[in-house]
Amino acid sequence: MLNKQESQQRITRLQQELKAKGIDGALFIYPIDVYYFTGTRQNSTLWVPAEGKPRLMVRKSVSRAIKESCIEETVPFPSSKEFPALFPPELQKIGFTFDVAPVQQYNYYAKLLPGREFVDVSAINREIRSVKSEWELGQMRKSGDMICQVFREVPGFLKEGMREVDLAAEFECRLRKAGSEGYVRMRAFNQELFQGLAVSSAACDPGFFDGAVTGQGMSSASPHGASAAVIKANTPILVDYTGIFNGYIVDITRFFVIGKLAPELEHGFATALAIQKYLVDNLKPGVICEELFLKAAEMAEEAGLGRNFMGAPGENAKFVGHGVGLELDEFPVLAQGFKVPLRDGQTIAIEPKFVFPGQGVAGIENTFAVGKNGGVKLTDMPDEVVYL
Amino acid sequence: MLNKQESQQRITRLQQELKAKGIDGALFIYPIDVYYFTGTRQNSTLWVPAEGKPRLMVRKSVSRAIKESCIEETVPFPSSKEFPALFPPELQKIGFTFDVAPVQQYNYYAKLLPGREFVDVSAINREIRSVKSEWELGQMRKSGDMICQVFREVPGFLKEGMREVDLAAEFECRLRKAGSEGYVRMRAFNQELFQGLAVSSAACDPGFFDGAVTGQGMSSASPHGASAAVIKANTPILVDYTGIFNGYIVDITRFFVIGKLAPELEHGFATALAIQKYLVDNLKPGVICEELFLKAAEMAEEAGLGRNFMGAPGENAKFVGHGVGLELDEFPVLAQGFKVPLRDGQTIAIEPKFVFPGQGVAGIENTFAVGKNGGVKLTDMPDEVVYL
Repeated sequence: MLNKQESQQRITRLQQELKAKGIDGALFIYPIDVYYFTGTRQNSTLWVPAEGKPRLMVRKSVSRAIKESCIEETVPFPSSKEFPALFPPELQKIGFTFDVAPVQQYNYYAKLLPGREFVDVSAINREIRSVKSEWELGQMRKSGDMICQVFREVPGFLKEGMREVDLAAEFECRLRKAGSEGYVRMRAFNQELFQGLAVSSAACDPGFFDGAVTGQGMSSASPHGASAAVIKANTPILVDYTGIFNGYIVDITRFFVIGKLAPELEHGFATALAIQKYLVDNLKPGVICEELFLKAAEMAEEAGLGRNFMGAPGENAKFVGHGVGLELDEFPVLAQGFKVPLRDGQTIAIEPKFVFPGQGVAGIENTFAVGKNGGVKLTDMPDEVVYL
Repeated sequence: MLNKQESQQRITRLQQELKAKGIDGALFIYPIDVYYFTGTRQNSTLWVPAEGKPRLMVRKSVSRAIKESCIEETVPFPSSKEFPALFPPELQKIGFTFDVAPVQQYNYYAKLLPGREFVDVSAINREIRSVKSEWELGQMRKSGDMICQVFREVPGFLKEGMREVDLAAEFECRLRKAGSEGYVRMRAFNQELFQGLAVSSAACDPGFFDGAVTGQGMSSASPHGASAAVIKANTPILVDYTGIFNGYIVDITRFFVIGKLAPELEHGFATALAIQKYLVDNLKPGVICEELFLKAAEMAEEAGLGRNFMGAPGENAKFVGHGVGLELDEFPVLAQGFKVPLRDGQTIAIEPKFVFPGQGVAGIENTFAVGKNGGVKLTDMPDEVVYL
């Protein structure tokens, strides 16, 4: 459970940013944003003025929000008449998360507060959240430890002839018993993920998901993750899952093989590990995100695997790692065009992967914290392919 | 997989509505809306003119969308230069789903098409989707059959002393093996659901969820569904889950008891069954949604259970049933203020439930299709409490 000191530090960082940008305050309506600042994700709207005390206005459940919230002024949502009176006319410039707030919500608040200027604070919000406190790093380490326990059990239940979805079901069952909360929050519009992927022969299909691997899924309505395809020998089995504990997500992939691998795939794995090593050695404050991606792409190219890097040939994703925390797709991204420096305490899933259509996928993924001496691994278990 | 005839019928119904409302066409960007009309949920934007042929513009994956889409003109997403040229100046009034489209997306399209008027087609979209075709009813019947199989297995693995989350894990494992896709789509902003709820002693906690029961969840970050609380004898165990097959969701709740129940709870169950019977008998085209809710509330009141109806006393939800289909929260809602008539082929989860704080929850839930002779049950298994 979030404590008041953590909550206060986050509010203070936000207020500093708002002041620096000349914004008079910000309204947060997206559940995980409200949770980050207050410690409750009950259905609520959070108002944080650039100066002064925040106010959490709760629709449902008021009694539960009062129990959980770190914000002194946690109150029932005011009536449409009372609401405007809480915003004196000198509050002109109101921050709002344009990245996730639907137009209907925007119109609702704009009508409640006529004559004010609403400005987008999506980037400020995501930048603040990208840097984790010591307490948060502890939470993520715990999430890492929990999911690694489940990964260690895979050789006990992975069998030739089972369907991808059977493997998924067995993995997910153990992950839930370990306490994982299951619901994966993603910020990007148009993205959906059900816990993760257990995919093998159907792993190479391209898809909507903003990652190297999408999987076939159970139908074109849910075209992601495990399918009914049968797991065969001598084909890499990719297990890429999120563990979510106390809201904090880690993201990890390991590969399993029943039998042995084709030389191209072995070469893919070796290259992925080399890329991971380079990135981790350089996961230091001040290093430019885009440069890490470009170097990774260069290493893939030098290994003769440029076409296969981060996607099926022709449908390659242009990133090699992504921020992760309360959402799966946090800042920063190790991607083309992301020309910002890493910051101490950011947490990033690094996932060099190679797709060989008709053969399978090879790669690795771990979650790391950015640190002065390079990345600190939060998903602490061996990286090697597990042969069964 | 969706067929071209179904897709064409849906597009035609939409075009009729657009014409009737004087809207020149509609842009759909929300995945499940795109899926409904086209048969693919790849990352795409669908343009449906009030007259003429629709166009599906795909960002990722183009190759997969072309395979799945029922729309003849399925093409890569045009460049920012090409896009405006596709919209001749006589197309003035553009429909957009204000209920789910974030402000950033709205601004993006408004900038691409300057000088046009964007209007909200959220209600049109939801009304069209609420009425299911014969094919869709078949899909939902299949989803119902599949999840009922899993419910029948519960007595085999439900044990006193297991935690709520262990029960959830066992249920979810079997549901996945049966082929359920897992990811539950909800349209309402601020709502989240991970598959369903397996809750007992922690079932009475109020919460953010727009339902009678929220559960405690694993943490205040994910305050919904199963918790680590231990399942005890003589306390109702609520298993409320969604089964999702080929995108189509059914919603069903059954109760299990190890031992026996207090008389208040038995009275709650009997009253819930009586309310369900009344609602099902009247689930006919033309009946006003609100009236069904008011009658249900009246029956609860007459049974002396008004305070406990649809939530903990003081935090009662004001509905007794909700549309369900490709999303868990479709139109119509059997709720206060919903003064519209039922239509033939709508599918509705009816869920009268009573919350007795400190004692447990009693009730029932099934998914029905609206029909001329009353509701047709799509979750076909006995309603009674299962005593173990």
